[in-house]
Order: sequence, then structure tokens, then C-alpha cells
Amino acid sequence: MKASGNNKDMKKHAISLYVANKPGVLIRISLIFARRGFNIDSLVVSEAHDPRFSHMNLVASGDAETLVQIIKQLNKLVDVVHATDHTGDNIIDRELALIKLQCAAEQRTEIMQISHVFDAVVINLTDNTMIIQSTGSTEKLDGFHKMLGKYKIIEMVRTGKVLMSRGEELTG
Amino acid sequence: MKASGNNKDMKKHAISLYVANKPGVLIRISLIFARRGFNIDSLVVSEAHDPRFSHMNLVASGDAETLVQIIKQLNKLVDVVHATDHTGDNIIDRELALIKLQCAAEQRTEIMQISHVFDAVVINLTDNTMIIQSTGSTEKLDGFHKMLGKYKIIEMVRTGKVLMSRGEELTG
Repeated sequence: MKASGNNKDMKKHAISLYVANKPGVLIRISLIFARRGFNIDSLVVSEAHDPRFSHMNLVASGDAETLVQIIKQLNKLVDVVHATDHTGDNIIDRELALIKLQCAAEQRTEIMQISHVFDAVVINLTDNTMIIQSTGSTEKLDGFHKMLGKYKIIEMVRTGKVLMSRGEELTG
Repeated sequence: MKASGNNKDMKKHAISLYVANKPGVLIRISLIFARRGFNIDSLVVSEAHDPRFSHMNLVASGDAETLVQIIKQLNKLVDVVHATDHTGDNIIDRELALIKLQCAAEQRTEIMQISHVFDAVVINLTDNTMIIQSTGSTEKLDGFHKMLGKYKIIEMVRTGKVLMSRGEELTG
């Protein structure tokens, strides 16, 4: 985290959890965040390589001090193997977005040029719509979304961040 | 859904929800699934194009009859704009996976060949590890994961499915 000279900085935090793949775990984890007034901006839950476990990656906004308490509480849960705040870590973060645009045939070239720059690909096309798939860091996807702002965006779905530490280290 | 001649078929269902972006919504939704014994296999929550709302995409396993009840209950929640079971719909589903492999230099060529076939890209490399990013349908990612099974997979994170209806229709 960047030093802001302010204890109550409401930064976005990227948190990863490795948890038992059991019913109820998600509810217990959500409650810990809700009780301390942390809003979960995005959340990804998926099966781990070992199917008895799940990976959770979440982005939450709130102050750093409260987050330290939340991480401690999470690590105390029986079903949580580990919970880590990765803000500022040497980590790879990736996200996927699908964006559906309304576009006339004559706008296609320009949209495809922008998409090319952002490594995005067109995965569906009709006479007046286009679905574009984009992958990358959250910042890159935000930039792409912003660039498409002048077209009519019909809908957008994003997966939220997944995290992985670089090199040989295990994440978390 | 394929007809199986069996009321209690435990199929995987892809469900999309469009909900108010408020604290507590996730807990209320999770409880509806938990109470009826539906296990959530993967879950994606992210901000919608309109930031007052969130998209949720989840994959859950259980019998079709119970799911009809769950969808009805979800649609009754004040904060749920709509909840839809997309199993069998004409829909695009995409997922992103990061896979970290242990691999010696002499294995790289083979791994990169396999990755190329599955449109996957190497995004990090050390002397004895590799991180590969793969995007596509769940089936494609499952296939890729299986192909890499003969190497030592250190870790894998996946985003879970996001859904979008083809063409001009709005999802849900």
C-alpha cells in the first residue's frame, strides 16, 4: 500500500483465501466482512487443483487497520487454510471481461482497432451488436472499458481479480 | 437440460443474477442455496456497467426441481433485479485460469505447444516454473487442465464462469 499519511485510507485491497470446499464457508466469510462494514467489490470462488479446497479472491474497500483485524479473524475460522492481503505484493492479477456493444457496421473497424491495442477479441457479432472479450489486469480492463465509453455499452460482465504470486512461491 | 428420465438428476446449473450492489445481498443469496442443500461450485461477483448494481454468475449442482424453487425465492428478494437459470440457453460462457507448473527447461517446448493449441499464453517464467493463462469455456479449461496433468501443477486459480447471451438480447 502507498503511504497516504492517513490511518483511515479507504484503499482497495486484494485478498486471497484458501478454504475447505464445504457448504456454509462462504456465508461465514461474508459475515466477517459485513460485520466490520467492509464492502466486497468483487469476489471469485472456484475449485482448487485439489477439489477438497477452493480458492477465493476478493477485492474489498475499507481502512487498512480494520482489514488487519478481518484477516486475523478469517485465519481463525476452522475451514480457512489461509487468508492473505496481497496489496502491494509481487503478484500477478488477471481478470476477464465480456462487453456487449451496440454498433453499426461502419463503427466496427474503429472498435476492432481499439480492441486490438488492448489484446481484446470479438467473440460474437450481429448486424448491430458485438461481444468483445478482454483479459488483463484490472487497470487494463478499466482502461479498455473507458475507451469504449463513447459507444453504447449494452452490458458488461467481469470475473473480478484472480491472484497468483510470481515464480516459485505459493500464493498466500 | 438434457432429459434424463430422472427427476433427481444432479446437473450443474449456470445461473446469472443482477442484484443491487449493497452489503448483505451476497449473504442472503448464499443462504437460499445453503438452506436447500445446493452446493455452489463457483461464484463470480463483479460491478455492473451501472455501478449501483452487480452481476453474479454462479454454477451450482443439485436437482432441477429444487433449483426452480431457488430461482423463485431469489427473484422475490428485494435486492435481486432478476435471477435466471441459463442451463441449455444460447449463451456465451467464458472463464479464466492461471496455472503454475513446475517444469525444467527441456519440458518448456512441449508445454508451450500444448498451450498454443488451447490458446493459452505463458505470462511468467523462472528457471523451473511457468505460469500459464488460459481463457475459454469451462470445458476447454477442463481439457487444458487435464492435458497438463502429467506435469507437476503447483497451483491453479480459476475465475469461474461468466455468462452473456448472444446477439442483441440482454442476459437474464
